[in-house]
Amino acid sequence: MKRPPLTRIIRELSKLVPFVGPEAQERARGRPFKARLGANESLFGPSPASIRAMAAAAADTWMYADPESQELRDALARHHGVRADNVVIGEGIDGLLGLAVRAAAEPGAAVVTSDGAYPTFNFHVAAQGARLVKVPFRDDKEDLGALLDATRRHDASILYVSNPDNPMGSWWEADDILGLIAELPDGVLLLLDEAYCDTAPPSAIPPIDVSNPQVLRLRTFSKAYGLAGARIGYAVGDAELIAVFDKVRNHYGINRSGQIGALAALIDQPYLTQAVGKIGRARDRIAAIARSNGLCPLPSAANFVTIDCGADGAFARAVLDELLAQDVFARKPGVAPLDRCIRISCGRNEDLAVFESVLPAALSAAREKVHRNS
Amino acid sequence: MKRPPLTRIIRELSKLVPFVGPEAQERARGRPFKARLGANESLFGPSPASIRAMAAAAADTWMYADPESQELRDALARHHGVRADNVVIGEGIDGLLGLAVRAAAEPGAAVVTSDGAYPTFNFHVAAQGARLVKVPFRDDKEDLGALLDATRRHDASILYVSNPDNPMGSWWEADDILGLIAELPDGVLLLLDEAYCDTAPPSAIPPIDVSNPQVLRLRTFSKAYGLAGARIGYAVGDAELIAVFDKVRNHYGINRSGQIGALAALIDQPYLTQAVGKIGRARDRIAAIARSNGLCPLPSAANFVTIDCGADGAFARAVLDELLAQDVFARKPGVAPLDRCIRISCGRNEDLAVFESVLPAALSAAREKVHRNS
Repeated sequence: MKRPPLTRIIRELSKLVPFVGPEAQERARGRPFKARLGANESLFGPSPASIRAMAAAAADTWMYADPESQELRDALARHHGVRADNVVIGEGIDGLLGLAVRAAAEPGAAVVTSDGAYPTFNFHVAAQGARLVKVPFRDDKEDLGALLDATRRHDASILYVSNPDNPMGSWWEADDILGLIAELPDGVLLLLDEAYCDTAPPSAIPPIDVSNPQVLRLRTFSKAYGLAGARIGYAVGDAELIAVFDKVRNHYGINRSGQIGALAALIDQPYLTQAVGKIGRARDRIAAIARSNGLCPLPSAANFVTIDCGADGAFARAVLDELLAQDVFARKPGVAPLDRCIRISCGRNEDLAVFESVLPAALSAAREKVHRNS
Repeated sequence: MKRPPLTRIIRELSKLVPFVGPEAQERARGRPFKARLGANESLFGPSPASIRAMAAAAADTWMYADPESQELRDALARHHGVRADNVVIGEGIDGLLGLAVRAAAEPGAAVVTSDGAYPTFNFHVAAQGARLVKVPFRDDKEDLGALLDATRRHDASILYVSNPDNPMGSWWEADDILGLIAELPDGVLLLLDEAYCDTAPPSAIPPIDVSNPQVLRLRTFSKAYGLAGARIGYAVGDAELIAVFDKVRNHYGINRSGQIGALAALIDQPYLTQAVGKIGRARDRIAAIARSNGLCPLPSAANFVTIDCGADGAFARAVLDELLAQDVFARKPGVAPLDRCIRISCGRNEDLAVFESVLPAALSAAREKVHRNS
């Protein structure tokens, strides 16, 4: 009996968990959070029509979902003015990012992203044995010029850009993104993660152009649509590029009710508009709470607000720890200088009231702690 | 603008779809099937407790599922007498097979399976660029001795065995499987696919022994539990081997309601017992229908019955085509000599009545067609 040796890439990979979930933290703490404001879920929930559709579909869970997701892809194609063969469905954007890396980056190839951007993307790059090139944020925004430079310099296979970005909530205007696309070196695949596009100013989102085989637009039902638990993301792009996913995807990986719920949510655009309005008001309220505590909220186009705590990463870490201790689940950027911030997801009034009530004491305690340690 | 080149492995891979779904066939036909007996789903459905739990969870779909699946893993650990760190959850056995291949087979490495066994496994091996070695079935069973020989001869990284097997429904006794395990060459990973274990004679299923790092037991809620659409499979094995999945899996890939539904289904063992009883009676009825039409049903330990149509693959294909034309969704093995058969999933009396009513005409039409062409 001898342990299987595993592949070289996997053997050399340290154990990485992209995000510890709130449930794991609750188990460790021994008590539940009072406000779940850390994972950029939508506390406003999905469309009631979507909830009804999923509940009604529960009894039919004995059937596999249509592995071609035809109805949902047809509806998304109509929604975006493309064809169904320009759309592929995956288990969240996370799943699609993994497949894209696998299909387009050889082990050892360079893949460019921003330092402090999406850890799950980095996780997939590591598991492929590709080489991550990280470009610093600039003024709390992904630095498009420097990202392009790095892509050229390292002869990268993939460039990852999110707009609006996570974890800062900053964004570029559509023209800036179009400028980036125009300058893409031949053969580079741009993964444009638009998880947060539904809450962004329309001027920030370029029209979808499936004629460019170098650009994949990644969207999700997890954020503004309020269906994080359904795990339905999708990519839109050139049909030949989209067809590549059929070579690597788990054809029967999509939950049947989730697929049905996403379709119902897509059809209910009035609800989405309402939800986006609520998210906008929640952003304003989070910003107001931050300001009234002497902190500086960053402008956000996403369903969260990132708050500059006005000092270094250790201080922001202390603030976050105090919030967690006071039963507010939140997260923070991990990389300097972004790590001076904490990140609060948009929530209902009652959720934000919990945050508002504990923030002053959390700040005092953090100041004391940092003072004590200095 | 130049198309991204893709990796060598993916570029050279022909487009493969493991299984065309019944929905795609219905779209092509322009009308629905009357009996859905092709995908080995459970037409008896999941436990009512599971349906209620999923329906109740629909409104909470705004939350991601616990990425550690702790409650479900704890319950499975209790169920199997192992620890939670001996269990990993995936998007069906399909998803876990893909991850296992990725972690344990280098591109170019040999991977052994039976010729005509699970196409989805072969699909994952191809996408990894590993080399598939196929061993013929013997007497309609996976040939354990020949599989071991091939594993040794090709210095294989992985051996795939299913028990009971699909598509024949045949099985080995636990002692035979334990004999195979005892003879495994050092370092080979045995993927023991037990999707159909719940409907097998207990004597066919060896006790789970997580002390052997070479054996991964793969289970699912898709078959006897009736939750194919939930996409919840799991693997049980040595904790260090199970931990490897954390390096490659989509941590947020599991649908929240599906996870809740699986837990409720696991708890409702009395319902499982009932469902297994119904599946057993359905097997008997399918066998009786086959015999009364002069065909030979193979013994089955799974939730389907494979029927020898008594001639060659072309004849069985003609029978299947007639069944499909008569609105019965069924499938058939693709590889000779298994391809002389058709495969009928267990269903309710009304589903099997549709099959029974159209089979005689399907057989006559197939005989005529084959006669005409000869």
